[in-house]
Amino acid sequence: MDTAALQEIFRQDRFAAHVGIEILEGEGGHARAQLVVQPHHLNGLGTVQGGALFTLADLVFAVAVNSRGLKATGLHASINWLKPARAGTLFAEAVEVSCSRRIATYSVRITDEQGGLLATFQGTGYRLDEAWTVPACPEGRP
Amino acid sequence: MDTAALQEIFRQDRFAAHVGIEILEGEGGHARAQLVVQPHHLNGLGTVQGGALFTLADLVFAVAVNSRGLKATGLHASINWLKPARAGTLFAEAVEVSCSRRIATYSVRITDEQGGLLATFQGTGYRLDEAWTVPACPEGRP
Amino acid sequence: MDTAALQEIFRQDRFAAHVGIEILEGEGGHARAQLVVQPHHLNGLGTVQGGALFTLADLVFAVAVNSRGLKATGLHASINWLKPARAGTLFAEAVEVSCSRRIATYSVRITDEQGGLLATFQGTGYRLDEAWTVPACPEGRP
Amino acid sequence: MDTAALQEIFRQDRFAAHVGIEILEGEGGHARAQLVVQPHHLNGLGTVQGGALFTLADLVFAVAVNSRGLKATGLHASINWLKPARAGTLFAEAVEVSCSRRIATYSVRITDEQGGLLATFQGTGYRLDEAWTVPACPEGRP
Repeated sequence: MDTAALQEIFRQDRFAAHVGIEILEGEGGHARAQLVVQPHHLNGLGTVQGGALFTLADLVFAVAVNSRGLKATGLHASINWLKPARAGTLFAEAVEVSCSRRIATYSVRITDEQGGLLATFQGTGYRLDEAWTVPACPEGRP
Repeated sequence: MDTAALQEIFRQDRFAAHVGIEILEGEGGHARAQLVVQPHHLNGLGTVQGGALFTLADLVFAVAVNSRGLKATGLHASINWLKPARAGTLFAEAVEVSCSRRIATYSVRITDEQGGLLATFQGTGYRLDEAWTVPACPEGRP
Repeated sequence: MDTAALQEIFRQDRFAAHVGIEILEGEGGHARAQLVVQPHHLNGLGTVQGGALFTLADLVFAVAVNSRGLKATGLHASINWLKPARAGTLFAEAVEVSCSRRIATYSVRITDEQGGLLATFQGTGYRLDEAWTVPACPEGRP
Repeated sequence: MDTAALQEIFRQDRFAAHVGIEILEGEGGHARAQLVVQPHHLNGLGTVQGGALFTLADLVFAVAVNSRGLKATGLHASINWLKPARAGTLFAEAVEVSCSRRIATYSVRITDEQGGLLATFQGTGYRLDEAWTVPACPEGRP
């Protein structure tokens, strides 16, 4: 699957939309997304809340594991919060560490606009038997 | 600190408010919160999104570690997603596993209205030197 | 499976024997083991080495997941080291958190002789299709 | 600190010696070690036991965090077991992800002789106020 197909699939993710995450890229076990920091992402200390950072990392993990063609569900994830963020655009990038028939693992880094590392994340996904069916001809195209 | 003081402090957490989490209880290293599932908490499969579950667990962890009187920041957290949720009210409860001068760890369970276990979470917090100062006399009281 | 069958199966675990771990109990998703601290378990600070503690926790996790009858393999585990140990007997106890067709999760606590909590551990196992075949009649019995 | 100083310090780690781990390199937040697989490293399935792999990864993590000059203790670690190993030499390499005044995090990969990835590991260490004192003149040298 390519970026356009994954963006189409994840358009159904209402929580990702509620948080404001945008998928930039997804293909071949790799994915990138961004979050433009808004006041509603902040915690009481004025920094981006830990759950908002996790949700951003988790989404690129989900895009990356699903990019392999099978529907997948998350089993486990962990996050290390390294540095607080206050404003600007945050980027998350998922890299595939392993992919076997059932289990796939990904490593995610969240960085700020200057490339500073804010958090690292590891996710383990379970690949179901069901494949994504991507319409060969997206509607509305000739 | 007691529940009222912690609810007051976490009223400043705008992301928790954006997600819709309500703190029910917080005192002595223990905390409980709830999330009434709304359409904007769902992923593309119609189940509560993994980041929403994490954010709920993370918030009770934060309340529990801060209930010990020192301001604290999260270092690391992990989640196991065990069972999907679709509707109703979800509950998260944090129990203190350890608390030393600098480091404190908590275990969180997320359950549904029937007591079914949806996710488990572990969090490690770093306790700063700064104590919370809770106003002795909340405004508006005689 | 019961304790005797699991002890028999894990007698083949040469690393557990090399480290000196003894299985005390295993049945129905629950397991207990002990380690009598010897000089070769210590690190350079004179406390039980982190890998020795992990190996003890990991073994009760393995016993617990295999006690459910299907051969299982570890996917992921994490440990929090809470307090150093120097001598005496250490105990590890695994409790089942969840068990579905493929995936089972366990929580482990390591304690010392006084019941002090030294470490907590979480393990995620993958259950294979192959069942353990326990000989109906152990050899040498009438 | 350099490799020779770290090898000297970790010579006191009796558990690492009992398992058979050799430090190859350590300096500037980076470390490498190896384990030549012996029969006593195997589990009942004839593959290298999960605790042996963890102990190898944990040791390079320990070398890497201590290479920064301050004595450090492990707070948390997690491992993903990706592929079984049966024989030959295993290599572990630790890379520094972050290092602040108190907290440092490392990512470790375990590979076999062909470069196949067997396991990934993440460790979080706590840096104490005490610095390692490395004798300026190792004994026995002119």
